Amino acid sequence: MDQWLKADERLDYLLAEELRIIQSPSVFSFSLDAVLLSRFAYVPIKRGKIVDLCTGNGAIPLFLSARTNAEIIGIELQDRLADMATRSVRYNSLEKQITIIQGDVKGIASQIGSEKYDVVTCNPPYFPAHEASEKNLKEHLAIARHEIHLTLEEAVQSASELLKQGGKAAFVHRPGRLLDIVTAMRAHRLEPKRIRFVYPKEGKEANTLLIEGIKDGKPDLKILPPLYVYGENGEYTEEVTEMLYGKE
Amino acid sequence: MDQWLKADERLDYLLAEELRIIQSPSVFSFSLDAVLLSRFAYVPIKRGKIVDLCTGNGAIPLFLSARTNAEIIGIELQDRLADMATRSVRYNSLEKQITIIQGDVKGIASQIGSEKYDVVTCNPPYFPAHEASEKNLKEHLAIARHEIHLTLEEAVQSASELLKQGGKAAFVHRPGRLLDIVTAMRAHRLEPKRIRFVYPKEGKEANTLLIEGIKDGKPDLKILPPLYVYGENGEYTEEVTEMLYGKE
Repeated sequence: MDQWLKADERLDYLLAEELRIIQSPSVFSFSLDAVLLSRFAYVPIKRGKIVDLCTGNGAIPLFLSARTNAEIIGIELQDRLADMATRSVRYNSLEKQITIIQGDVKGIASQIGSEKYDVVTCNPPYFPAHEASEKNLKEHLAIARHEIHLTLEEAVQSASELLKQGGKAAFVHRPGRLLDIVTAMRAHRLEPKRIRFVYPKEGKEANTLLIEGIKDGKPDLKILPPLYVYGENGEYTEEVTEMLYGKE
Repeated sequence: MDQWLKADERLDYLLAEELRIIQSPSVFSFSLDAVLLSRFAYVPIKRGKIVDLCTGNGAIPLFLSARTNAEIIGIELQDRLADMATRSVRYNSLEKQITIIQGDVKGIASQIGSEKYDVVTCNPPYFPAHEASEKNLKEHLAIARHEIHLTLEEAVQSASELLKQGGKAAFVHRPGRLLDIVTAMRAHRLEPKRIRFVYPKEGKEANTLLIEGIKDGKPDLKILPPLYVYGENGEYTEEVTEMLYGKE
């Protein structure tokens, strides 16, 4: 394992997919939100070009590789995370399908090409920069979680710049930012078409928002059935279990 | 009954509330959406002033009168419907609490007072005017259902004009208009705070949207648990049964 792992990194299973991913509790581990977005997003099955913005340790490209033969590019600002993602891609022998690029999501289309992608996925930083404490501002987790280097609107704009007309952008975010994200999407030619709210359990408020828009699409928004994460017994629901571990 | 009813009108129960309402299948009957909005909307219990826009045959004021002692004004453009609502109010001896005014929702604040109400409810026409057929344009049902005399944005504007700072506006609409309604609300100082999606049954897309905003409120949107109308057996769920018929 020494050839693959650094410091406190672990090689974790991406269970449903029989893939492995390099993670580190102190630097970055993927969240359930990445799993949810990977399953929510439309992907072409046979061919096409997909970009995952804010890819972190590459969880979404890895998950998507199990659903599509399309080329996938993951963009990550932080060297350390992009390096973890690159090693995970190599470990799974997916170099032909997945490319990890260390770079800034802002303006990325000028580097990898405008209006040429079919799908963009993005699990952006969720929290306003001012909520990050001063001392944490340079830490890996703070950058991944707070809008320090990338605002929601900038993420939406980059997604739009990358997409062909008719291409699809899918985001995961907090429900409290619903109005901001739909406003930003419409401002950048991404017409919201499908929204799914994720609830921790029945009777609770939603804590996650999945949204997909089509570049230059016609207004026709659908609110999909709710997704519950935990059942009454405190365990994952059947639907989430299937996302994580595959069909029993 | 002759003293109360005209033509093909019926005197129906509002079951949970032990109230009666005058309806007519050819002119107007209240829908489940009116019931849902009446239960979703915040209302002050003891005192205050409430306006129900597009009140139709007065179902929402009648339902609300069971939840609050506040004064309630119902505004209805169509003479015939306003007359039905007025007779229902009298039949239930609620003239001290409920006033029905025949008038145009557009600019109604200049008639009944700006910035003086605590709550505004509105179940507006849902469908774009162009979807109404030419021959139906003057019919009661077409006017109540289509944006012929009142657009969504005009309804939102009137609600905002009536409300005090901190007052609450609650609307029911179709989920496909979510983006339009939140855009209109923010444009007219009504910050969306609570949204509840209504699903016909589990596994289906939402077909109704309940939304409440606060005039000049701070952004802090919550997505409430979903509401299902029908259970697996095809009958109303417990929650909807309770809204319609009261606790068993």
